[in-house]
Amino acid sequence: MPKNTRPRVVIFSQGDEVITGATVDTNAAYLSQQCYELGFDIIRHITVADDMAELVQLMLDIDSMADVCLCTGGLGPTQDDLTSEAYAQAFGLPLSFDEDAYGMMSAYFDKLNVPMAEVNRKQAYLPEQSERIDNYWGTAAGFVGEGKHCRFYFMPGVPYEMRNMMTSFVIDDLKQKFHIEKTKLITLRIMGMGESSIQQIIDELTIPDVVRVSFRAGLPENELKLTFPNAYPEKELRACIDMVQDALGSVIFAVDGLDDNIVSLADCVDQLMQKKEQSISAVETLSQGLFAKQCNANWLTSSQVFPLCGNAVKTMQMAEKPVSEKTALAIAKNLAETSLSSMVMVQLYHAKAKNKSDIYTAVVDNASALSSTREVSGRSDRQQIVAAAAGLNLVRKTLLN
Amino acid sequence: MPKNTRPRVVIFSQGDEVITGATVDTNAAYLSQQCYELGFDIIRHITVADDMAELVQLMLDIDSMADVCLCTGGLGPTQDDLTSEAYAQAFGLPLSFDEDAYGMMSAYFDKLNVPMAEVNRKQAYLPEQSERIDNYWGTAAGFVGEGKHCRFYFMPGVPYEMRNMMTSFVIDDLKQKFHIEKTKLITLRIMGMGESSIQQIIDELTIPDVVRVSFRAGLPENELKLTFPNAYPEKELRACIDMVQDALGSVIFAVDGLDDNIVSLADCVDQLMQKKEQSISAVETLSQGLFAKQCNANWLTSSQVFPLCGNAVKTMQMAEKPVSEKTALAIAKNLAETSLSSMVMVQLYHAKAKNKSDIYTAVVDNASALSSTREVSGRSDRQQIVAAAAGLNLVRKTLLN
Repeated sequence: MPKNTRPRVVIFSQGDEVITGATVDTNAAYLSQQCYELGFDIIRHITVADDMAELVQLMLDIDSMADVCLCTGGLGPTQDDLTSEAYAQAFGLPLSFDEDAYGMMSAYFDKLNVPMAEVNRKQAYLPEQSERIDNYWGTAAGFVGEGKHCRFYFMPGVPYEMRNMMTSFVIDDLKQKFHIEKTKLITLRIMGMGESSIQQIIDELTIPDVVRVSFRAGLPENELKLTFPNAYPEKELRACIDMVQDALGSVIFAVDGLDDNIVSLADCVDQLMQKKEQSISAVETLSQGLFAKQCNANWLTSSQVFPLCGNAVKTMQMAEKPVSEKTALAIAKNLAETSLSSMVMVQLYHAKAKNKSDIYTAVVDNASALSSTREVSGRSDRQQIVAAAAGLNLVRKTLLN
Repeated sequence: MPKNTRPRVVIFSQGDEVITGATVDTNAAYLSQQCYELGFDIIRHITVADDMAELVQLMLDIDSMADVCLCTGGLGPTQDDLTSEAYAQAFGLPLSFDEDAYGMMSAYFDKLNVPMAEVNRKQAYLPEQSERIDNYWGTAAGFVGEGKHCRFYFMPGVPYEMRNMMTSFVIDDLKQKFHIEKTKLITLRIMGMGESSIQQIIDELTIPDVVRVSFRAGLPENELKLTFPNAYPEKELRACIDMVQDALGSVIFAVDGLDDNIVSLADCVDQLMQKKEQSISAVETLSQGLFAKQCNANWLTSSQVFPLCGNAVKTMQMAEKPVSEKTALAIAKNLAETSLSSMVMVQLYHAKAKNKSDIYTAVVDNASALSSTREVSGRSDRQQIVAAAAGLNLVRKTLLN
């Protein structure tokens, strides 16, 4: 491998369930993140069906285009699991029975108190000259082997098993086999400003050419990512990030990769809640439990979920009041008086039209009472996400007060 | 296109956010489902980064391997959005300014009451000889054009905009341009039986060779899919499904694609609740709001969420009782006496070890009182999913009683 060229990775997913869209391929994203952080150059994600001829041809293609291939799926016991056989055909390596793989599988079934099916025997056949990757979390052993040019890692498609194999074996093996210069990725997490506006502000700044700028439009958060070369001086890196922060202002709720490691708004709130030793009780409506789901059990005392706002105001003995920001605040203040938690979050909403609502959020603690109104639009699952984020964001602001 | 050969589709996603794993590519799954249902043969999913040379080369490769390419991403206003330019280069078609696209974009910004940024102008440049796909849901117009062999559809990467373009234009256009024989897909949804056991039972049945059998292992549901040729006689199809249902028994909670259209356990419960005009109040612990999130606001009156079981039993005035199935049932019965809902679901749990809990679920209505105990293991988000499913499944059983 020539110096200063980052090794090229192909993420290869297989299986009818992925190609037909029955399953969303979350493995590809996870594997890409891992490789990206290690400093690899991810050149392709490729997915194909369970078709022997296609699989063999693709493995040969990948062998000629990449240095590393991370392959998931096709190691199961059923008739449509063809990976080991395809790899064996592609590189002329016969399959042979692996006693240890079979033993581990038997032990796994014993532990579950489930008899092992005869079809599982197939999973213990691995290509010769490959190294087994032990699976302590399921039945299918993985394996790693060399093509003519590319190093292939084969892992099960079950995310839990695959992730455990990555952290127990593959990542270390990659580090050992490929010596690469890492890049430094700084992510600015943004709430309340769109991609175009961010781009326009960034365009007016002088960001050095060696710094790669990219965007990610998400719901409810947007991300601005700056990738610096490893050798980029720390002081200049910080100056660059400061400049961008100054330009974008308070819409940035977290800077990830510099001093902190904050992966989402929920994570940001979690870190603040734990640091400040706070606890919270909530009343949710539109977010329908999604606020609670994103909280940490260590500091969420309870959440009362009323999908219909009428049930919330009735239960909170405010049925005679209009549904408004003021009423949300009044309910939060009432609850705060008797609550066992140090904070209370209350959210109400008013459905103005099909797919359009106003949400009223209030957060009260012993020092402050904040409230906000915002409009959300779109289908109900989208409205749930935005409503839950509005709740979390007001909790965050209260914690920073 | 020769008769009886299904047109080949490549799903093509682009963008640094997908290739680096910052975003999970849900578009690929959605587009595949649509094409699969239309009867197309999906041969690849391919994802690449925002790199001009790679994009151009890949479009040429796809042109020679597929009949249809559905491409998402890269139509935005920012500097890393290269799709139109890459297509223009690949097939020698200059970009030209499209007045109508620009007009629609201006109108869109006006409606939002947001000034249009200058960078958005770029999005109105479309390749010559291509047909614009109007975007009423965002800024980026899509377009459709012909390579030497393949028909390319370009859509924004924002799922909401892409899906609207699919249903408003692309699906109709595909149907018009390609006359294909549909297949019939029947999905058996299974709860409480693993892939190996399903395979072993299926192996003992005589399923005709023309019927394609595939599996999808999911959490918490597994799926067994049977794909029949379009001309397969209805009576024989039903006989085949009956045979499989008889063999697998009560673990099947839904048959999707025959008489009903049931896409998940939550959907199954939703349909039953609405049909039987029931409503429910819930007490959640381990599922932490995920039960509520999956219910329909039309029949979920409220859910009280206590992430820590101790807070639940204390609030329910059962603090002196052991956390058990019996206690869950007692709480449900107490609540049912005063509840405004026709049903009550209560779930408690006991964390036995790191990553292992017993969950106790009880569902009470005016005719019955069911309860169950089961063990869940794995990380907390996995336990949340299984706990919510256990709640929904017991509600389902109560509704079928």
